[in-house]
Amino acid sequence: MKCRVCREPAVIEVRRHNAGFCHPCFVKHCRDQVKKTVDAYQMFSENERVLIAVSGGKDSLALWDILMHLGYNVDGLYIGLGIGDYSSESANYTRSFASSRRATLVEVDLPGTYGFDIASGSKAARRAPCSACGLSKRHLFNSEAARGGYDVLATGHNLDDEAAVLLGNVLRWDLAYLGRQHPVLEAGGGFVRKVKPLVRLAERETAAYCVLEGIDYIVEECPMSVGNRHLAYKGVLDDLEESSPGSKASFLFGYLERAAPLVAGVSAAEREALHPCPTCASPTVSEVCAFCKLVERATTKR
Amino acid sequence: MKCRVCREPAVIEVRRHNAGFCHPCFVKHCRDQVKKTVDAYQMFSENERVLIAVSGGKDSLALWDILMHLGYNVDGLYIGLGIGDYSSESANYTRSFASSRRATLVEVDLPGTYGFDIASGSKAARRAPCSACGLSKRHLFNSEAARGGYDVLATGHNLDDEAAVLLGNVLRWDLAYLGRQHPVLEAGGGFVRKVKPLVRLAERETAAYCVLEGIDYIVEECPMSVGNRHLAYKGVLDDLEESSPGSKASFLFGYLERAAPLVAGVSAAEREALHPCPTCASPTVSEVCAFCKLVERATTKR
Repeated sequence: MKCRVCREPAVIEVRRHNAGFCHPCFVKHCRDQVKKTVDAYQMFSENERVLIAVSGGKDSLALWDILMHLGYNVDGLYIGLGIGDYSSESANYTRSFASSRRATLVEVDLPGTYGFDIASGSKAARRAPCSACGLSKRHLFNSEAARGGYDVLATGHNLDDEAAVLLGNVLRWDLAYLGRQHPVLEAGGGFVRKVKPLVRLAERETAAYCVLEGIDYIVEECPMSVGNRHLAYKGVLDDLEESSPGSKASFLFGYLERAAPLVAGVSAAEREALHPCPTCASPTVSEVCAFCKLVERATTKR
Repeated sequence: MKCRVCREPAVIEVRRHNAGFCHPCFVKHCRDQVKKTVDAYQMFSENERVLIAVSGGKDSLALWDILMHLGYNVDGLYIGLGIGDYSSESANYTRSFASSRRATLVEVDLPGTYGFDIASGSKAARRAPCSACGLSKRHLFNSEAARGGYDVLATGHNLDDEAAVLLGNVLRWDLAYLGRQHPVLEAGGGFVRKVKPLVRLAERETAAYCVLEGIDYIVEECPMSVGNRHLAYKGVLDDLEESSPGSKASFLFGYLERAAPLVAGVSAAEREALHPCPTCASPTVSEVCAFCKLVERATTKR
């Protein structure tokens, strides 16, 4: 197979584009896809300060690398979740990426600052680990971006992630969640703008990008995510993509183009009910925000 | 396991209801579910004439049996599609059911009346067999119901069928198809009312109903359906149902309750563009209806 662009031998085939790419053309293709996404959804400009939530995995490190190459003003944010070796290894990958690029990395240590880790927090709050983790990360992403005066918070959600989340939301027809599923959530009500510049790249492509560009990342899945539904939804979509390449992209972008406008009103209404949490000042629709409730339960029960 | 209703030994477990049933209570449960569906969606009354599209399979024969037991005024419609032994066997099951119940069966033979079968028609029209078949059946169901003066056409689509169709429609976000996916499509523009009274029963339940009630049906899938996407979508949903019983029902009914109202306008607009086909008088948005085009291609090329 030859590179679609330059006709040199290809190193990777992307079936949904019915194309092969050589190393330099694939790297350029990935960066072009991200640039196109940033521009199409008006995610941020070169003058704005972007904070990237970095886990040490392929997606967030590829995103950081790509946005730096595209000339954006980006810093990294790493949250230490206290998940044993998984956390210490992922922190090491993140730190060595940052130091090799002389990039700024903001670090927050959940156990050190808030007195609990994901295992103890989820147990105390009687939440699944992925639920307690997601809640904590969303809270800290927003509060750290606000505290640091960033204009926008970027996450490394890729096409596979977003399609799997969409499948989960569609299976339950949770319109409030569906209404919030967009590559850009505008700032408002105490939330900074949130963007997902990798939605046009599949998981396999961000992994290939890292391998080709020599970016070391943590390969293992989080040990606490075993058996979670998100992984089951990914498996379902992998099967459909295998028999019909392009299924994931047409599922996600078909939703964004045609159905998302129909449900947009639902989450807008929800946003109007937001007010600052009396404990931490983060936006919430409840009396106290879900993160502060989690902190209280996790630290009281010890 | 005991019957949820009478505490006698159960013969079937229905996991999404977290319940077992003995033979008589299961049969009553199925009939109650159909009655509840007919009433909830105001499908038809006891004074109306119902034509059931019967394939000789478990769903349509169970539906016919159940609606007769519930006291509705129902006749059967069988379309001979010319699919070799599959068609002759399914015709035999349908005829013996009808004669054992002294029920009225209307028969239409596609090759005898229109000069082509599904294999030749799909080849001539360059359509997949399931596409040519679905198109022909939908056309003949409607034209036969109209010709016989029936108030409503009922099909045996069950929960599994409807959930799989919904998944296919959602993966493509085809709003026109989504807008038409409802247990009742009201009459209008030349279409008779169409209803799906089995949407609350899973495939496994209609099969068990037939076995327990001694209804013989054709067990084989249509030989021309091998590899079609609908079966792949069913497989995907079976896996999700296995790990989380009730997934299919919450997917379908969540859609109907919360999302269908948002897309209803799309298909309503389409209906307004309908006019009678100049050849057969069936409603169409094209100059000539798709069935008449299929007939022309299938018979001209011979």
